[in-house]
Amino acid sequence: MPLPYTAETLMGYLENVFPQIRGEFAIEALQEGHIEVRLKVQERHLRPGGTVSGPAMFALADVSVYMSVLAAIGPKELAVTTNASLDFMRKPDAGRDLIAHCKLLKLGRLLAVCDVLIYSEGKADPVARASMTYALPPDKTIKTQ
Amino acid sequence: MPLPYTAETLMGYLENVFPQIRGEFAIEALQEGHIEVRLKVQERHLRPGGTVSGPAMFALADVSVYMSVLAAIGPKELAVTTNASLDFMRKPDAGRDLIAHCKLLKLGRLLAVCDVLIYSEGKADPVARASMTYALPPDKTIKTQ
Amino acid sequence: MPLPYTAETLMGYLENVFPQIRGEFAIEALQEGHIEVRLKVQERHLRPGGTVSGPAMFALADVSVYMSVLAAIGPKELAVTTNASLDFMRKPDAGRDLIAHCKLLKLGRLLAVCDVLIYSEGKADPVARASMTYALPPDKTIKTQ
Amino acid sequence: MPLPYTAETLMGYLENVFPQIRGEFAIEALQEGHIEVRLKVQERHLRPGGTVSGPAMFALADVSVYMSVLAAIGPKELAVTTNASLDFMRKPDAGRDLIAHCKLLKLGRLLAVCDVLIYSEGKADPVARASMTYALPPDKTIKTQ
Repeated sequence: MPLPYTAETLMGYLENVFPQIRGEFAIEALQEGHIEVRLKVQERHLRPGGTVSGPAMFALADVSVYMSVLAAIGPKELAVTTNASLDFMRKPDAGRDLIAHCKLLKLGRLLAVCDVLIYSEGKADPVARASMTYALPPDKTIKTQ
Repeated sequence: MPLPYTAETLMGYLENVFPQIRGEFAIEALQEGHIEVRLKVQERHLRPGGTVSGPAMFALADVSVYMSVLAAIGPKELAVTTNASLDFMRKPDAGRDLIAHCKLLKLGRLLAVCDVLIYSEGKADPVARASMTYALPPDKTIKTQ
Repeated sequence: MPLPYTAETLMGYLENVFPQIRGEFAIEALQEGHIEVRLKVQERHLRPGGTVSGPAMFALADVSVYMSVLAAIGPKELAVTTNASLDFMRKPDAGRDLIAHCKLLKLGRLLAVCDVLIYSEGKADPVARASMTYALPPDKTIKTQ
Repeated sequence: MPLPYTAETLMGYLENVFPQIRGEFAIEALQEGHIEVRLKVQERHLRPGGTVSGPAMFALADVSVYMSVLAAIGPKELAVTTNASLDFMRKPDAGRDLIAHCKLLKLGRLLAVCDVLIYSEGKADPVARASMTYALPPDKTIKTQ
C-alpha cells in the first residue's frame, strides 16, 4: 500500500495546519512505520550552558509522532497527544541540529503509540527518548488539498 | 526554616538564568513544598482550533518543577530534568492563562520528584497533569547575586 | 447522583471478576472521584532488604485505578490499562501494609485518567506515585449481579 | 571488554538475590547493551479473558532492565527502579510466553535508562513497551560468588 504522503506533501500539510512552526522542522526520511525529523536548532531553542531546551525536544518528539501518525492514516482532523513520557539522558550540543527517529509501534482504531529517540546530529548516543500516545478521531477523513 | 526565596527573588533568579523566558511566567503562590505558576498565554503558545500547544504546557510544567526545587534547596547550578510524564486531558482555552499547581513529593540527595496539575484559569477541571524528576547536582551551592 | 457501588459491592465485584487477587486488597474509603485501597502485604510481595516489590506496587496502583473507574461508571467489561507511569521515591516498610490514595482526574468517553499516591501505612511521605490511563469500552454496560 | 556475566551466571545471581522469582524467568540472549528475557507464563500470571496481567508484564520489564544493568556493571547492591513508564498496546496471548527485548540506552554514573519491547512469543507486533530508570548505588561493587 503506498503511503498517503511523500516527505514533501507531509511537510507541506503540517506547515499549512501549524503555520507557527514553519521553517523549524524538516523530514529526513519517511518509510512505512518510520520517520526521521530534524529540528533546525536556533537561538530560541537554546538554554544557558550551550544546550537545547526541554520544551524544544518535547516539540520535536511531538511533531515527529504527529507526522508518523499522519503518514500512516492520511490527514485526520484533531488527532491529539494524550500522553507523553520522556527521558532526558545526555546534554544536546547547542551547535548541532537534533534528529528524531520515530517508530510507530501501534496504530489502533482509537490510539496510536510511537517511540522516539533523539540524537544530536552526528552523535551515536541518543540525548533523549520519548513515547507518545495520540488519540485518533472517529472516522472523519479530510481531503488533502 | 525560612524558604531561601520569596516569589520575587525566585522569579528574578529564574529570569536572570534563563533570559529567553523573561515575561512569560509569574509566580502566583509560594509555600513550602507547593508553588503555583502562571503561563501568560500569548500568540506563540497557541495552536489552530484555539488551544494552547503541548510544548507550552511542557514548558510551564518544567519551569514550575524547577522553581519548586529551587524554592526548597536554594540556587543550584545544573539541576536538570531527567524524566517527565504528562497526560493531556482537556483542551485548554486559548483565551485564558494557564496556572500550574506544583507539589514537591520528594527531595532526596540526588533526585527530586514533583507532581503538577495545570488548569485553564478559572476552570475547575485540570487540562493536564505532569510528573517530573530532576537530578540534583553534587553539593555545589551558588551564591545568589 | 449516588455511586453505583458501596465499598462492599465494589470489592465483591472485583474479587468475582479477578479471583486471583482475592484477599489481597481492601477498600479503605470510597467517595466520588476518590478511593483508598489497602494492599495486605504478604511474604510474596516482599523483596530482600525488607521492602515491597515494584510489581506489588504496580498491582496496587492498577487495582486502585480500576476500582476508581468502576466506581464512577458502574461495571463495564474490558476496561483496560493503556498507559502507566510510576515514580518510586522511598523504600516501603516490609512490615506495613501499603495504602493507595487514588484520584480520578478525567472521565471521558474513551479514556479515564487517575493519579495515585502510595503510602506505607502510618507514614507521612509517599513511597510511590503513579498515573494511569484506562481505555473505556464502547457503551456496553453489564448488569451487576 | 568482556561482559561480567554469561547468561547462566547472571540468571544464577538474580535467583540467588531474589529467590521469590526462581523459575519464572529465563535469559534468551545476552549481548553488550541488549538482553532478551522470557517470562514463563503460568496460571498466576493470567487474567480472565485469557491474557497476561499488567503486574506480570511490569515484573518482566523490571527484571529485564535490572539484568541489563547488572550485565553492564557487574553485581551492585541496591540498584533500584526510580521511574517506569509503560504502554500496553495489545492483549497478550494467554497460551504463550512473553519475551522482552531490552536495550540499554544510557549508563551514567548515577542513572541507567533502558527501553523494553515485550512480545507474545512468535508474534511480530509488541504487546507492550516500557522505559525504566534505575538509580545506581555509589561505587560499592560486590564480589560475585
